[in-house]
This record gives sequence, structure tokens and C-alpha cells, in this order.
Amino acid sequence: MNESTATLQTTAAQGTRSEHDLIGDRDIPADAYWGVHSLRAVENFPITGQSLSTNTNLVMALAMVKQAAARTNLELGLLDAPRAEAIIAACAEIIAGKLHEQFVVDVIQGGAGTSSNMNANEVIANRALELMGHAKGEYQYLHPNDHVNLSQSTNDVYPTAVRVATIFAATSLVGAMEHLGKAFAAKAVEFRTVVKMGRTQLQDAVPMTLGQEFNSYAVTLGEDRLRLAEATLLVHEINLGATAIGTGLNAPAGYSALACTHLAEISGLKLETAFDLIEATADVGAFVHLSGVLKRVAVKLSKVCNDLRLLSSGPRAGLGEIDLPAVQSGSSIMPGKVNPVIPEVVNQVAYEVIGNDVTITMAAESGQLQLNAFEPIIVHSLTKSMRHLEAACITLADKCIIGITAHEDKLRAQVENSIGLVTALTTQLGYAASTKIAMEALSTGRGVAELVLEHGLLSASQLTELLRPERLANLSE
Amino acid sequence: MNESTATLQTTAAQGTRSEHDLIGDRDIPADAYWGVHSLRAVENFPITGQSLSTNTNLVMALAMVKQAAARTNLELGLLDAPRAEAIIAACAEIIAGKLHEQFVVDVIQGGAGTSSNMNANEVIANRALELMGHAKGEYQYLHPNDHVNLSQSTNDVYPTAVRVATIFAATSLVGAMEHLGKAFAAKAVEFRTVVKMGRTQLQDAVPMTLGQEFNSYAVTLGEDRLRLAEATLLVHEINLGATAIGTGLNAPAGYSALACTHLAEISGLKLETAFDLIEATADVGAFVHLSGVLKRVAVKLSKVCNDLRLLSSGPRAGLGEIDLPAVQSGSSIMPGKVNPVIPEVVNQVAYEVIGNDVTITMAAESGQLQLNAFEPIIVHSLTKSMRHLEAACITLADKCIIGITAHEDKLRAQVENSIGLVTALTTQLGYAASTKIAMEALSTGRGVAELVLEHGLLSASQLTELLRPERLANLSE
Amino acid sequence: MNESTATLQTTAAQGTRSEHDLIGDRDIPADAYWGVHSLRAVENFPITGQSLSTNTNLVMALAMVKQAAARTNLELGLLDAPRAEAIIAACAEIIAGKLHEQFVVDVIQGGAGTSSNMNANEVIANRALELMGHAKGEYQYLHPNDHVNLSQSTNDVYPTAVRVATIFAATSLVGAMEHLGKAFAAKAVEFRTVVKMGRTQLQDAVPMTLGQEFNSYAVTLGEDRLRLAEATLLVHEINLGATAIGTGLNAPAGYSALACTHLAEISGLKLETAFDLIEATADVGAFVHLSGVLKRVAVKLSKVCNDLRLLSSGPRAGLGEIDLPAVQSGSSIMPGKVNPVIPEVVNQVAYEVIGNDVTITMAAESGQLQLNAFEPIIVHSLTKSMRHLEAACITLADKCIIGITAHEDKLRAQVENSIGLVTALTTQLGYAASTKIAMEALSTGRGVAELVLEHGLLSASQLTELLRPERLANLSE
Amino acid sequence: MNESTATLQTTAAQGTRSEHDLIGDRDIPADAYWGVHSLRAVENFPITGQSLSTNTNLVMALAMVKQAAARTNLELGLLDAPRAEAIIAACAEIIAGKLHEQFVVDVIQGGAGTSSNMNANEVIANRALELMGHAKGEYQYLHPNDHVNLSQSTNDVYPTAVRVATIFAATSLVGAMEHLGKAFAAKAVEFRTVVKMGRTQLQDAVPMTLGQEFNSYAVTLGEDRLRLAEATLLVHEINLGATAIGTGLNAPAGYSALACTHLAEISGLKLETAFDLIEATADVGAFVHLSGVLKRVAVKLSKVCNDLRLLSSGPRAGLGEIDLPAVQSGSSIMPGKVNPVIPEVVNQVAYEVIGNDVTITMAAESGQLQLNAFEPIIVHSLTKSMRHLEAACITLADKCIIGITAHEDKLRAQVENSIGLVTALTTQLGYAASTKIAMEALSTGRGVAELVLEHGLLSASQLTELLRPERLANLSE
Repeated sequence: MNESTATLQTTAAQGTRSEHDLIGDRDIPADAYWGVHSLRAVENFPITGQSLSTNTNLVMALAMVKQAAARTNLELGLLDAPRAEAIIAACAEIIAGKLHEQFVVDVIQGGAGTSSNMNANEVIANRALELMGHAKGEYQYLHPNDHVNLSQSTNDVYPTAVRVATIFAATSLVGAMEHLGKAFAAKAVEFRTVVKMGRTQLQDAVPMTLGQEFNSYAVTLGEDRLRLAEATLLVHEINLGATAIGTGLNAPAGYSALACTHLAEISGLKLETAFDLIEATADVGAFVHLSGVLKRVAVKLSKVCNDLRLLSSGPRAGLGEIDLPAVQSGSSIMPGKVNPVIPEVVNQVAYEVIGNDVTITMAAESGQLQLNAFEPIIVHSLTKSMRHLEAACITLADKCIIGITAHEDKLRAQVENSIGLVTALTTQLGYAASTKIAMEALSTGRGVAELVLEHGLLSASQLTELLRPERLANLSE
Repeated sequence: MNESTATLQTTAAQGTRSEHDLIGDRDIPADAYWGVHSLRAVENFPITGQSLSTNTNLVMALAMVKQAAARTNLELGLLDAPRAEAIIAACAEIIAGKLHEQFVVDVIQGGAGTSSNMNANEVIANRALELMGHAKGEYQYLHPNDHVNLSQSTNDVYPTAVRVATIFAATSLVGAMEHLGKAFAAKAVEFRTVVKMGRTQLQDAVPMTLGQEFNSYAVTLGEDRLRLAEATLLVHEINLGATAIGTGLNAPAGYSALACTHLAEISGLKLETAFDLIEATADVGAFVHLSGVLKRVAVKLSKVCNDLRLLSSGPRAGLGEIDLPAVQSGSSIMPGKVNPVIPEVVNQVAYEVIGNDVTITMAAESGQLQLNAFEPIIVHSLTKSMRHLEAACITLADKCIIGITAHEDKLRAQVENSIGLVTALTTQLGYAASTKIAMEALSTGRGVAELVLEHGLLSASQLTELLRPERLANLSE
Repeated sequence: MNESTATLQTTAAQGTRSEHDLIGDRDIPADAYWGVHSLRAVENFPITGQSLSTNTNLVMALAMVKQAAARTNLELGLLDAPRAEAIIAACAEIIAGKLHEQFVVDVIQGGAGTSSNMNANEVIANRALELMGHAKGEYQYLHPNDHVNLSQSTNDVYPTAVRVATIFAATSLVGAMEHLGKAFAAKAVEFRTVVKMGRTQLQDAVPMTLGQEFNSYAVTLGEDRLRLAEATLLVHEINLGATAIGTGLNAPAGYSALACTHLAEISGLKLETAFDLIEATADVGAFVHLSGVLKRVAVKLSKVCNDLRLLSSGPRAGLGEIDLPAVQSGSSIMPGKVNPVIPEVVNQVAYEVIGNDVTITMAAESGQLQLNAFEPIIVHSLTKSMRHLEAACITLADKCIIGITAHEDKLRAQVENSIGLVTALTTQLGYAASTKIAMEALSTGRGVAELVLEHGLLSASQLTELLRPERLANLSE
Repeated sequence: MNESTATLQTTAAQGTRSEHDLIGDRDIPADAYWGVHSLRAVENFPITGQSLSTNTNLVMALAMVKQAAARTNLELGLLDAPRAEAIIAACAEIIAGKLHEQFVVDVIQGGAGTSSNMNANEVIANRALELMGHAKGEYQYLHPNDHVNLSQSTNDVYPTAVRVATIFAATSLVGAMEHLGKAFAAKAVEFRTVVKMGRTQLQDAVPMTLGQEFNSYAVTLGEDRLRLAEATLLVHEINLGATAIGTGLNAPAGYSALACTHLAEISGLKLETAFDLIEATADVGAFVHLSGVLKRVAVKLSKVCNDLRLLSSGPRAGLGEIDLPAVQSGSSIMPGKVNPVIPEVVNQVAYEVIGNDVTITMAAESGQLQLNAFEPIIVHSLTKSMRHLEAACITLADKCIIGITAHEDKLRAQVENSIGLVTALTTQLGYAASTKIAMEALSTGRGVAELVLEHGLLSASQLTELLRPERLANLSE
């Protein structure tokens, strides 16, 4: 069921005005700020039922771009003050969170974002008309295309707005990752001296500390955060002033630079105009890159969650190294069962992000000649990836990591009972002799230390020093 | 912003009742049919803000499964008549479309569907309590787990409901594909005698008809429809009665078969119980398979849309073979520009479906031991793929295919002017001599026929017959 | 370094003959069976250094198609007996395994398979010339295009050969999967009475047997095998006789049916001619479908290998349920370490197959109009997927599954010590009371049975029967 | 058929020596430098038949790491001079290209690279033994593990060698991209004044120059090259000295830093030791990142090749803007047909790279706890991606781009005949009036300029200036 359609029908009961496009005339609900182009789009793209209004960042960013354009057109003498000021004021309202419900086109839409831009032009024009004392639809006073869209094309407005919105979302995600990283770092401190067996290929390897393990999670997320911040920098390059295909047709000299300056001020972002506007108009490389980095983040987060689920497996027939906090009953049939539901939901978000990356890749590869017509699905996919990862990071930190506890005694006992200890003796005994000890320990169930003593290979005091867990774990005491 | 949370807060203003789980007590809004387990889940999974209620098919399917279970429990003497009838009646209401807004958990959730099942148990229990004359929350009379979930586990209920919902959605998609196929077939008839150049590798090849081209689209979609129907058959195998891990613990003898029979009757579907319930409980192969087929459908649809966009390129500097109907203005800056926005939106849906397939693949591969904990993201992705493909097929048929027109004269002229005609002469002239003619035609810009005549290789009458477009196109006249 | 190029240079030292194409003349090593078209291709596509000769199935299938065409052309009177018989004999040699090293073009090549077809035409023509008593290159007696390729186009020959080769490879894979399935089934019998804890979401759930677990692996692979066999059936539909674009231009009436009959006989496969040759020539849906099924197989195999690695984790700080046979030393530094290297290599093959599926998907989606130009990468990817999966199945069965042993005593003790046993009591105690027992067991480390007795909830004899592991595991005794 | 196995059998005929591992004794061909561990691996992993020797960069990098380790062990007094010098000399031979055929293990292998490291240890040990005057296999004088692998583990040696090899391959690819970028830039200069119609969504948009179009390709590849160089920098961080799990067990104080210094000198690369060796040992983020960037490169290359194939479509029924150089006959049935085979092969490489990225993603996500066991498939996939992209870039530049020619007159005529010209008039006429003109031009087939004059909207002189192609294309004259 298409919610946008539902909205349109409801409001249609309250009187209409007529609007015209190249196909013909259509009645528009009298109280609608959107117009005929938006209506066509709503009818043409009944795909998800999720309207553009759900992408708050993008709606705001579109208004920011339109406001920057109006300022520029005013300064360059292309737009008179009354119209410019009305447009600027209408945009300010949208930036402040108003009228978002008027952005009714579907998030998945044909037309390279034209319908999103048209929707913005119409809403802004009609609100500006009201502010000028006119009725909605009296486009002879202020026209969605001739005035709101002046010196612009969808092909520079939409990608620019998308970039602004993406920066907002990515920055918010960086913050969430930092929050999660701190949660891991705090646990790393808490578990600094908890000795445990390290494992490679799921087989017991050599000792380490649980603090080292959690610290490695903090470090790995920290690296990802840096990569994400770098990738976000690439998104700061915009093509405003490119108009239709990058040649800047219908945008006057100086427009591009001035509009960028205004948009930077309005958005608070360090935006820059691309060096080659033709390349920049066709190119979605920065989104492919960003999605690739989001995929990297997802891969790491998922790996960490896999580890958490594994380390907390049990309670009695699993590894049982740590306990995750119980946040809900785990089973409708098995009483008292507690499941690692928070890491599980993070895993799922990660799989979604990885799938989104394939979607974005295909959409990017399918761009042709001077434009990529498939930017809406790129935007939709990127937005989901960033939002869901952000929610996942916060949830993981607050609902899981901060409440993790360790089974310290069990962990130390496993180290002391481990065959992997023999590794520490190879520098003394050699690989071949150590292998024999290990195989004997495995087949008899006995301990490495007692076998070494029995075979007279090392003295008890040598062994005590060589096998001290803290030494093995390289724990600076 | 999480809509589910918003809902919960709004209703919370109207008084509360207290419920208890393994973590402790919680206040529940008095008018809520969901309970403490749903509340925990809403708080634990604030990921998409899209609640389970948006998956109408799945909500209905959960109620069908619960109704089938209640009938079975009644017949097997496990549940007394008053309770069973109340549960059955509550389920009937949900199947009829009521109470769906009470399914408040997020579509992406940890816990292998437990929260969805718990949400269903609670809503059904509370509605059944009302029907029995009790207040919501008086679980001593009818308990979400002990009675609504009796003989069940999330691990058989949820996969079974998901399968029922998936069959509904897939069947609907099959219908949409048939609708689209018919639109192509009708055009194939309309364009039966329109001769045009066939192309391989984007280079002019040999003649065919536009009808043949559109017929091939109808045929290819017809094949996909068959494959989809076959893949849907595999989804009819359910594991109801498996309970927690497939051993059927806590489900009495005969439960599995009887519950399947009831569910088949309620749903109208030819469901079958899996032969090996342990395998069936861990396995999501049928979903991977179905998604693979949806991907195949997406690949084909996207290819066809690529062709449509290419054939309609122009209007003056493109191939310009066909015109797609104009459905909206194409540009905010270029007046009169009409873009292939309908095929474009279908392309984007296809890319999304292909990405979803990767998500599903990863989630499936990550299942461990006796259960796949990641079925919710599989369900969410599959549901999107099916819904969006369905919308895409209908939209493509109704907004685009039925209005396509052809530039018949231009197409015939291209055939007559084509170098590719030389292919028809190779059986007479041989490959080497024909190559020379083709190269001469290419370098001089002259026609193949005149060159053949000039070189005295064939007579005019031979040429006329050999090069007749209808013969070349294998058009049965 | 390109091995094919290397081959060409080595042989070039032994004298040359001159050949001609539309670009000009080229010297060909006198002893080469390939000709100018192959040479161009080798020079144009120096991508992988892996020549077509490495795809034995495809080289043989190309010869089968050419042989079928020659037989058909002879019977239809298009080709005289001496030439037809020479071609047939040359093809027979290639089918018997000779001359494969003459297939020198790269496995990744532009041109929709034209270079592979040209390579086949040239090798067969030159060998046939020799058999007729002529020198290689004397194409006036028998021409690669006019005679070997008579009534054919790359666009029907190549896809048909690819299908024949694919059926051979897929059939071989089905056999390997059956071999692996039997290995699992044998272990299922061996472990039939070994009781163990089942796990959901890595948490202890309820009891089952190790035999049930291994049987589920056999069952799941058996299902995949059926799906693969079904998908292979779809590949039996060929487009021989379609020629360039499916209109059958230059192939005489009756050619298509007769050639299919001959090819079926030569290959021993139940091939059928596609109903719509135009659709069939452009379509690669059967390959997308097959790859989707291979991906499904990969997903399952990987899941099973993940389980095997998990169940054999240890030897002392892991789950330690089973031991995989040691097949090599696991570490260069940790003596005696044994790693699950066989499952690990299978996992990696699975990841490769899943990646190949994306490659195939993109190549399929990129087909345009009457042909998919990217079939070579589809073929290369499919071939790798099938071969590596086959090797993986055989290796997994022979190097790992057949040698697996179980820690039976430990497994039974875990069941008896499990909190999950409480699930079996819920039908008596109810969900709420059972939850309390479970939580008490968890916090105190005590057993479920003793707590139930202590609280006087059930009698000892009731408990003994309710908690009997064999009953819980649904083990038919 | 496994080539490696074949090699082993051939040489086995020439006498044997016996070697021992934890499984037992095995005969090794007397002339083999590899030993028992390599033999086990060859038998255990008969997957691709492609041996490690085919990855020249990796074989050399392994020798560099071993040489750096030997130097460090010598300086730290862990290894005596005769052994150290023999190892260093043996490594030098491998770095110089010798003994590569002795690296016999399969490129896809279980065990996290252990078999590759063991193979290197054995080859180096046996060659060093020879240099010391001993026979191969006399490990009592110099042992593969105790001496060649001293202070090392597979888990630091293998990732480090992989990184060195990756840097070599990536750097080579950067050079190939630069070569291709220059080819595009040269064409941009050549086509600087060739006016043509720009297109968005495959529909005629507004004028531009062919030079601008080709320049955008050069720019876009230049950006990708920068991104690739940045991603390669991340790979310079190594974990040598981490040993088994990053705690540095069995590596003496100072080893890590000194070994890195030696390796940097030997390789000529600015390597750095990771800050957190535990994180670095488990992490494959840099490879995921690099693969993501390679995918970006593939996406762009593929998009450019799609454009080239589209712009050169024809020769008579396509866009026909440019001609790609003919490099081979395009068809076995259609004489004189020339296909865009070079862009086509590049497209296919791109699809392979995109598929490889999914493989790498899955392998990375599947890493567990202290190590990623699946690094071999990551390495194999990355290596293919880099090599094939390099070959694709060189081939595209040399076989296609440098020979492209333009149909200048046709392109200018299309501009002059274009409806898109009306866009240039909207600043004068307004969007609504311009739309009417465009629609009239479309329906009547007439020109925009004549209609504007006819309707008296602008004067002839105004039109001439407004519609001057060079002005429209923003061509600085």
C-alpha cells in the first residue's frame, strides 16, 4: 500500500487547483504545496510507499541548495529581491523542519532525481507564493522552474543535495562508531589482566588477555572510523553550477563559485566545487567509494559480533568465556534461554549493508554518457546503510558491550591446562621435540608441563618462568 | 526516528498494566495488546523504524499458524475448548486484517524471529482474553506461551509463517509478471511486420522484426515466471511440529501432521511437512533458491529495460526506433525533454533485488548448527524484492509497454541501407568475397546491393529475392 | 606472462604460412592448426594467460557441435562428402582429446565467443585439410568459415557448445555431491545413538543426537543435489540453427532439428531445440539460474563446514565435540597444532562461487538487444564454480568426513548437566515456573533436576522419564 | 587435473628421501626442494591446479620476509652466521627469480597460509643446506621451522609477504591506469573542438564537445588512480614480529622493529609496523578496503567501455559518433562485421573484479577471533583483480583508445538539428513557452530555431548568438 498515494487522496477532498505540464492538466489538492510534477511522479513510481519525506537529511539539503541558489541569483541580479527573499524564507522553513510531509515522491524513482528536484521546486514555490501574499499555484508570480530552479538543473542540484545529506549522515555515523569504540576500550581496561587462550582457526593457540582482545576491537573500529571520515571528505566535492551536463549552460559566469560559498555557509560544511564539472556530473565514484568503506565497517562489525556470540556461547556446552547482558527472553519454548540478540541484529545490519553495496555498484556501473540516471537507488541504499549502521553501533554499545562480564577463573584454568603452552618451549626444545610433547599431551589428556618434566627436558623453575601466563600474553605488568 | 517507539509512547499515556519477564517488571500501556516481550524487542532493536505490521502477509500468516496450532491442540486434547476457541477467534480477526498495528517489533530484529512470535503470542493472548471476558494481561486465564504457543517454538512457527507469507507474495508477483508478459505479447502482435535491423554487440547484424524482438521479451519473462512458480513450490515445505530444533520436543505425537493439515486448510495452500524436521529447522535453502530466482527475474527485467531505453534513445541523435509514452516532464532545465523514467525505475528495483540476494546469501551462510538466527533479514529482504518487483512489473506494463509506438519507415530504411545484408549473400559468394564487399560498402558509404551488381557477382533478380527483408527476418507471411 | 603467447612464439621459429583477414596479412607458424583469427585474438586478449585449452569440456563440446553441423550439412546436401568426412574426422580427434593445445585464445575474451568459435573453425579446417591430403592453410579446398562454420554462427555454436560443456561439468559435480552425501550419511549411522546438546543461536537448547546432526547434513546436500540436477535440465535447451540472431539466416530449413538430433547422439545428452530461437540467442537465463543454484550449494557447504570447524574447536578450550582427522601440521610455530584445513578450503571455494555468481549476474544483466556479448566471462566463472565445488566435495568427503570421531562421553555429560532440560518440563510446570528454575540453575551452577526435586515440583521418577536423553532427542530406539 | 600433483609425480621417479611430520613418514623426491609439509598440502588441496608459483610477486615477497627475518635473527644473536648466511643466499636466489617452480601448493588452500609459509621454509632450508654443503633433507643442520622460520609464525610472515606482493601489484596497476589516462587525455586534445550532443538518460540533452567527453574519462581515471594509491598506502602496515596471535611470543625484544627495517630495505618499500599487533594479526581490513577501491576502478572502467561501445554503435543503424579501430573480424557468419571486442573484454574483467570483491568481503567477514583463516582466497582474488585490471588498462589504451576517430560532420549536424537547443532559450522565453516550442518541434519534425522565428519570439541575430554550438558547449575558443 502506497502511503504517499493515500496522503494525496485524503487531501484531495478539500478543493483543488489546476496545474499544467507537457502531458496536460491535472487537479491538485488546494492545500498541497507540491504540484503537477510531483503528482505525476507519485503516480509513476508506486514502488516502496516510502516517500522522500522520510529522508530528513535530503529534504533539508535540497532546501539548503535552493536557498544558496536564490542568494546567488539575487546577488548576480538574475532574481529580484521579493522573489529571492520569499524563496530564501521558504527554504529556511524547510531547513527548520517544516513542510517535510510535502515531499511526497517515492524514494525509488526514475529520472535521475528530477522528481525530487521538481517536488522541492514546487513546495518552495508555493510556500514562497504564500509568503508573498499570493495563492498556491499562481506561478505567474513565482515559478517553480523559472525562479526556484533558476540557473540550476536537477543534474547539479540533486547530486549536490545528496552529498550534503550524505555528509550529515556519515558524520553522525562516525560519532556512533566513536561511541562504540569507547565502549570496547573501557572493557579493554576492565579486562586488562584477564588471561585467556588465544585461538587461531578455532583451535587453541597461545595465551593472551581478554583486555587485548577487546582492545583489538576498539582499535579496529577506530581504523574504520578514520577510513569513513576520509571517504566522507571525498563527498565534499560538489557540481553546483554544472546544470544539465556540466557545461554550465544557463548558469551565468561566477554562479558556480558563489553558490558553493553560500551552500558551504548555510550547511556549515567545507564544500568545494569539482575541478571538471562534466566529469563530476556523470560520476558517482565518491558514493561507490563511501559504500565500499561502509561495507568495510560492516565486515568488521559483523566479525566482532561473530566473536562475541562465540565467546559467550553456552551457558554450559559452549566456550562460555564471557556473558552478554540479558536483554530479553530468548525463546518462546525454552524457559530461561538468553540469546545474543544484540550482536545478531548487528550481524543482520551488516549483511544488509553488504547487499546495499552490490546494489550501489550495479547502479553506478550502469550510468551512461553524461549522467547516472540511477542515483536515487544509490542514495536510498547509502542512506539505509548509514542509518542502520548508526543504530547498530549505538545499540551494540549500550545494550551489550557495556554490560559484558568475564568468567575469569575458567579462562585462567584453560590457559594452564592448554597444550598451546608448548609453543613457548620450542625456542628451548625445537619444533620436532615440542611436536612430540604436544601429541602426547593430546592423546593422554595430560599437561604439557608435567610431560616436559617427566621427560627431563626442562627444570621445574625453567618451566615456571617460561609458562607464566602474563609473560606468554605479553602483558606489561 | 522509530515509529514503533512513537506508537508505544503515545498509547502509554492512557494507563498501564504490569508484566514480568526474566529480566524484571515493566509497565505496559493498558490498551496495548502486545506485552512485555514485545516491549523489550522494540527497545532492543531500534533499527529501521519499520514495524512488523508493514508486512501484512507475515502478520496474517502468523495468525494462521497460531490458529492451526490451536485447532490441533484442541483436537489432541491439550487445550480446553474455551481457550482454544478464544485463540481461534482472535486469530481470525488478525487474518481479517484487524489488530495489525499491534505488531510493533522492528522488521530487522535479533533472535531468529522470537520477538515476532512473542509479539503474535501476546497480541493473540490479550485479544483472546478479552473475548473470554477477561482483562488484557490476566495471563493466569490464558497465557501467551503456555496456551497460544502450546506445542510450538519460534523455530517452527516463524519459519512456517514466513513460508506462508512468502507464497502469498510470490504468487502475487507471478500474476504481475503474467500481466507484463501479456503487454509484451500484445505489442509483439502489433509490431509483427515491422522490419528492423537486429544488433549483436551493438553493431548492425541482420534483419528481424520488431514483433520478434518484443515477442522474445514476452517469452523470456514467461520462462522466468515458470521458474518462479517452481521455486515457490519448494517453499511449501514447512517444519511445523519441529519445535525448538526439529526433534519435536513438547509437541505430542501426531501434532505435526495435523497442524499442517489445518494450516493448509486455513491458508488455502498445499503445504507439506518436511521429511527431516531437524534439517528443515536449520535450513533456509528454499529462501536462497527463491532469491536466486528473483535475481534472475531482476536480471532479465533490467536487460529488457536497458533495451527499451536504448531503442527509444533520441529523439534525434539516438537509435530512435520506438517511442515510450511520455509520463512526466523529464527535466527541470530542459523543456520538452521526455525521459524513459519507467524503465529507469525498473532498473533500480532490479539492482535492489540483486543486492538483496547478496544479503540473503550472507545471512544464509551464517546460520550455525541447529538454527539460522538471521532469518528476519532474509525475510525482510525477500519481502522487499517480491513487493518491489511486483510494483515494477505492473508499472512497466501499464505506464510504458502498452503505449509504445514504432518508427516503422525509419526502421525499414535502415534495413535496406544496411551492410549486414551481405550476410545473406555469403552462401552464394563465400565469406572472403563477402568481406570485401562489406569493407567497400563501409569505406565508400555505398549500398551492398549496388556494389554486388557493379562487381557482377549476382543478378538483380537474384539480389531482390535474396535481400527481401521479410525473408531475411524469417517472417512467416 | 601469457602462456598462449609463449606457445605461439616458440612454434613461430619453425617456418610460417601467410593468412589474411579484414585487417591484413599475418604470418602463422607452419605447424599451427590455429590461424589468423586465433592469432588476432591471442594478441587482443592477453588477460589471464589461461588458454581455452584448459577448459577440456568446452573444447570437446565445440568439436561435437562442429561434427553435428558437418553431418547435418552433408545430409542436407550443403557439403560434399570428402569435405564433410574430413571435418567429421578432425572433430572426432578433438573429441578424443587430441589437438587441445591448439585452442590458444584466452578464456576471458571480447566478442561473445567469436574467437573461440574461430579458433575451433581454424583448427578443424587445418586438421581436415591434412586428412584430405592438403597442407595447412590451403583454405581454397576447405575453408574455416565457408565449410567448417557452414550454416552456423558463433551466436548459436558457442552457446550450444557451452551448454554441452556445462552439462558435463554439472553432472560430474552432482556425482561428487552424492559422494559427499554418502559420507555424511555413513557418519549419521555411526553416530546414531550419540546424544548431545542441540544449539540454537550458539546457546544450549535441547538434546539431540550427533547422528541426527550429520544426517541433516546428508539431507541438505541431497536437496541441493536435486536442485542442481533440475537446473542442469534447463541447460539442455540449445539454439543451434539460430545463426546470427535467431532468425536462422543462412541455415536451411530443417537444419536446426537435424543438427540437434546429431548433437544429442554425439554428446549422449537429451538436448532440445529452444522454442523461440530469437529469445534463446539473447538469453543467458539458464546460466544465471544454474549459478544461483551453485551459490545455494556453496552456501550450504560453507554452513556445514562452519559447523564442523565449530564442533571440532579445541582441543581443550573449544566445544570439542568431534575430532576431524589430522591431515597436516597446522602451524609453523605451534607444534602439534592441528587445524581444520579441509573445511577451511571448502569455505574458501564457497566464497569464490558466491563471488562468481555476482560476476555472472552482472554479465547477464549487461547483455544488449539480440546477444549477450559477455558469455565468455559467464562460462569462465561457471566453469570455475563447478570444478572447484567438485574438488571441494570430494576432498571434504575423503580427507575429512570419513575420519571424524566423536567424544561420546563428554557429549552425554553435557546433556545431563544442561539447563536446557528444563524445556522438557514446561508442559508440566508452565513457562513462568520453568523460567525461574532455569534462572536459579544458571545463577547457582546447579542442575535442573535437583532444583525441581528440591522445590517439590515433580517426583524423581517423573523426572527420570521426562529427562531421559533418548526421549528428548526423539531417538527411536 | 592438478598440475602440481603432476609435477610431483614426475620428479618422484628420480629417487627419494624420507621426511617426517606429526602424521608420519613420507617419501619426497630427492631433487625436490619442497618437503613433507608441502607434499601434504598438495594432496590436501587439489582445488585449482594452479600452484603458488604462478604468483611471482608472492613467492618473491615470501623470500624477502624470510631474508629479513634471517638478517634480524643474525643481528640479535639467535642464529649463527653460517646458517643465517645460507638462508639469506637462498632467499636471494628466489628473489632473483629462481626456484619458483618449487612453490607447489595450490593457490586456494586451507590453513591461513600455513602451507605457503611451510613451502617457503622447506625450499629455503633445502637450498640453504645445499649452499652449506649438505644434502637436501638434512634438517639436523638447518631446519625449516627452527631456523628458517625462527622468531616467526605463518600468522605474521604470510600477511606481511602478502602485503609486500600486493604493493608490487597495485603499483604496477597504478602505472597501467596512468598509461590509459594519458591515452584518453591525448584524445581529449585531439577532439577539443568537435561539437556533439550531450545526452542524459540516453536522451538528447545539450551540446558539448567530444574532447570534453574524453577528458572526463581521463579525469575520472585519474581520480581512481589517486584513490588506489591511497588504499595501497594502508597496505604498508605490517605485523612482522606478531608471531602466532600478535603477542610476539617467541620473538625477542626488538625483533619486530628490526625485521621491519630490513624488509623495508630489501623490498624498497616504506613499510611500517602496526601499532597494535594483535589487531593487525586478525585484521584484513586493508585488503577489503583495497578491493573496494579496485571495484570502484572496475565500475568506472566498465562505464567508460559501455560509453565507447554505445558511441561507436552502428555502422549505420547506431549512434555512430566514433569508430573504434578494427582489431579482428567480428563474426564467423557476418562478413565485414567489426565488433568492439576490446571494450567488451574490459567489461568482463570489471565484472570479475566486482565478483572478486564479494568473495573477499565474505572471506573477511568470516575471520574468527585472533586470525582470519581465509586469507589465501583473499590473496588469490585480489591478485586476479589487480593483474587482470592491469592487462585490461594496457589493452584498452593500446588496442583501442589511441586509434579512435570521430565522425565530426555528423556530430555537428546533430547539434544543429537538436531540440535540446531550446534549453538555451529558456532564460529568455521561460520554461513553459520553451516546452511548447520543444513539443511542436518534436511533433512536426521541424527545427527549434525556425519555430522560434515563426512565432516571433526572438530575432534571427539573437538566435544565432544564443545557439552557437561553441557557446553552448562552453568551449573556450
